[in-house]
Amino acid sequence: MVTPIDPTSVGFLLAENRSMPMHVGGLALYKKPEGAGRNYIRDLYEQMRSCEEVAPLFLRHPHRSARTAGQFVWETDDQFDIDHHFRHSALPKPGRIRELLELCGRLHSTRLAWDRPLWEAHVIEGLRDGRVAMYTKLHHSLVDGVSAMRLLAAIHSPDPDERDMPAPWARRNRPPKAASEQAALETSLADVPMQALRTAMGITAEAAGMPIALIKTLNHSIRNETSALSLYAPRTILNQQITGSRRFAAQDWPIERLRAIGKATGTTINDVVIAMCSGAMRAYLLELNELPDTSLVAMVPVGLNAKQSQIASAEGGNAVGAIMVKMGTELADPADRLRSVHRSMKDGKDALSSMTPIQILAMSALGQAPAIFPVVLKMSGIARPPYNLIISNVPGPRTTQYFNGSQLVGNYPLSIPIHGMALNITCTSYDGLMCFGLTGCRRTVPHLQRLLTHLDQELVALERAAGI
Amino acid sequence: MVTPIDPTSVGFLLAENRSMPMHVGGLALYKKPEGAGRNYIRDLYEQMRSCEEVAPLFLRHPHRSARTAGQFVWETDDQFDIDHHFRHSALPKPGRIRELLELCGRLHSTRLAWDRPLWEAHVIEGLRDGRVAMYTKLHHSLVDGVSAMRLLAAIHSPDPDERDMPAPWARRNRPPKAASEQAALETSLADVPMQALRTAMGITAEAAGMPIALIKTLNHSIRNETSALSLYAPRTILNQQITGSRRFAAQDWPIERLRAIGKATGTTINDVVIAMCSGAMRAYLLELNELPDTSLVAMVPVGLNAKQSQIASAEGGNAVGAIMVKMGTELADPADRLRSVHRSMKDGKDALSSMTPIQILAMSALGQAPAIFPVVLKMSGIARPPYNLIISNVPGPRTTQYFNGSQLVGNYPLSIPIHGMALNITCTSYDGLMCFGLTGCRRTVPHLQRLLTHLDQELVALERAAGI
Repeated sequence: MVTPIDPTSVGFLLAENRSMPMHVGGLALYKKPEGAGRNYIRDLYEQMRSCEEVAPLFLRHPHRSARTAGQFVWETDDQFDIDHHFRHSALPKPGRIRELLELCGRLHSTRLAWDRPLWEAHVIEGLRDGRVAMYTKLHHSLVDGVSAMRLLAAIHSPDPDERDMPAPWARRNRPPKAASEQAALETSLADVPMQALRTAMGITAEAAGMPIALIKTLNHSIRNETSALSLYAPRTILNQQITGSRRFAAQDWPIERLRAIGKATGTTINDVVIAMCSGAMRAYLLELNELPDTSLVAMVPVGLNAKQSQIASAEGGNAVGAIMVKMGTELADPADRLRSVHRSMKDGKDALSSMTPIQILAMSALGQAPAIFPVVLKMSGIARPPYNLIISNVPGPRTTQYFNGSQLVGNYPLSIPIHGMALNITCTSYDGLMCFGLTGCRRTVPHLQRLLTHLDQELVALERAAGI
Repeated sequence: MVTPIDPTSVGFLLAENRSMPMHVGGLALYKKPEGAGRNYIRDLYEQMRSCEEVAPLFLRHPHRSARTAGQFVWETDDQFDIDHHFRHSALPKPGRIRELLELCGRLHSTRLAWDRPLWEAHVIEGLRDGRVAMYTKLHHSLVDGVSAMRLLAAIHSPDPDERDMPAPWARRNRPPKAASEQAALETSLADVPMQALRTAMGITAEAAGMPIALIKTLNHSIRNETSALSLYAPRTILNQQITGSRRFAAQDWPIERLRAIGKATGTTINDVVIAMCSGAMRAYLLELNELPDTSLVAMVPVGLNAKQSQIASAEGGNAVGAIMVKMGTELADPADRLRSVHRSMKDGKDALSSMTPIQILAMSALGQAPAIFPVVLKMSGIARPPYNLIISNVPGPRTTQYFNGSQLVGNYPLSIPIHGMALNITCTSYDGLMCFGLTGCRRTVPHLQRLLTHLDQELVALERAAGI
């Protein structure tokens, strides 16, 4: 079966090269059910492996040839080999989180082959605390962050007693019995046509057709460098060419702690997330003697309101815009940094509200497909980096989720570093936790794990500053 | 430091693409020393990781740019990161050889990034029999099979009590104390200039300059299809486009058993190796209902005699020629197959003896760089595959070897499948064992593991036929 590939997805395929694999990933941690036996993980692996029918999304691979007139199409892999995609791995002793993150960094470094469906999943045993890990990898041409979260919700169940749940790549014919209405709706995601799996494809497809004109519009209208919409950021060690090798760091903190800071200071949870990143980046760059004099700028994707969405998305989907946030990394005081972030976020949202349709379109394009746009910006002659790093916050399931009785206890996203943007911070909320996933180029971002300590210290500092 | 790359190595770099990574590998199995503690493997890993000075061979990566006038040069990686190259891995339970081969196949599938030195090594724990495995991967532009075996000999010691032995990639300043004179000579291999690490580079470099002319010469002079030098083989499932994904199978048999068959039948150990492969391929292809009516042809690299070497190698090195061996896969009787192989090998050697210098040069080129030449053959308009698979037999150390007290108990080569040649069988002898390594494209060569059973059954059948 041959299906055309939408322009956004084609963009992700074309932007890919050996140093810039265009896949997103997820690390899920599970607590085994009570009374799980010795062979629990192997049995789980075998059960998932023997999935009877694979959903179309997980069977397709991109193809282009003279026969397709040089156009990319999705083709069904008629020699599908589940053992190529789904694997059973293990950690060396002592099986700490450190060994797990090291393995995930390594798995995230290898590029998906286009001659097979663009996904991998690894069941990982050997954590000394007895938990089970699952690393999954999907090409960005198949899913964006929001869709990935929907998929995550769709394959889990809030019912700890539900069993015989199908593998994430199994074709689903009916909603799981204990799922909510929303989950039931989302269950069939893997079965819908490829196009619908991208949340706001319309906008980016359109923007992809005229990116340079769009960016020029944006650039001309906001030449003022002090604007919250500035496309100018200082040069940092993060803004270099990257290699294909990755490091991954992940940790979670109770959302309640972030909420308390927000309440005490009149800021949002998202503001606190970015302030944590700001303090952590400051400490990290200071240690390396690489902190610039002026503030780092983060590109933060934000949801657009109904009217903005209507402008930005031809299909009326949930379009995503982008705000350039001055992180306040030049400020020594945590409270000052949080205030700076809050103000910059607010300015950015206000600016989005006052933007012309074409500007909203451009900003949405930036928010939708950040991995493609720096290339475009470069093409349009912008010499300095438009921003220093991307910080995304994608909402995930709010309640405890289970897979065949195993409790999901953490879920950490792995994202896409690109040339000029060697670090990506993506957060997902899950069951009262804010889960941070930091993905960096192994060469360009040294000692990535230290950022976790800095994030933790910054959270404590923000609590102290907020009088908690 | 910048060094030019020799033409043969450049050939391997240029021939590489996503479906055809050009690296060779080795799986070494070790028995831990008596009294090894719980942390033996981690300590071994940490000791090797903290190598003080890395040898130049393991620090260089290929580079080309406008600055180098588009030519490939070796550059020293000034941001060398040992953790990218040397890794600690583990097998999932139950930790059988099956899980080990699966992991090796997976590790062998990923391409080495050119922006870093072209090697990887993995210490692998979790074998249920308590042994330790080491998978290593080196780009074919750095080593050929014979050099790899010398390197192997150089990093081991015949002395079980020797300790403080450096990692394979460590710079060596003096020969290990208990090594033989030959080993001492080889110890410094990793330190010699890059060029010298290839055994007979001169010839291939020369041939690379005029491959099409050479092949045409060869082709014209041996148009007779019944000749042992025929460059025509039947089409089989092995002779298709391949993917970048690999399967690996490995097993060893006592050389004594092969030698006994040779003695009883007047054939060589190498003849018996090829006859084993012949019977195994016949059984394998019969099961798949894919056995061709005419014999499969194997390309078998052989050493040239002194005079031939002189012709083939400008530097007088140990040049390697190639013989096209009719494997006798169309014959039902094991004894007939062995006779057919023996005759074909003898014809081939005789033909090499009677060849003109230019023909020897061409056959040597084929034997030296098989991974490149099918591309050339295709370019020269030969439509049918020149041979069906490559069977190499590279001599290794004859005595028991140790690394820091761990006994090397098996050593299995992983080689390079290429487009049109989806399976490679490479054998190495070690300490009384003939170790087979079968590397195949995961998609094109299904059920690769079955070949091990077939090889074993064929050895038994040959013994019976020889009256043993």
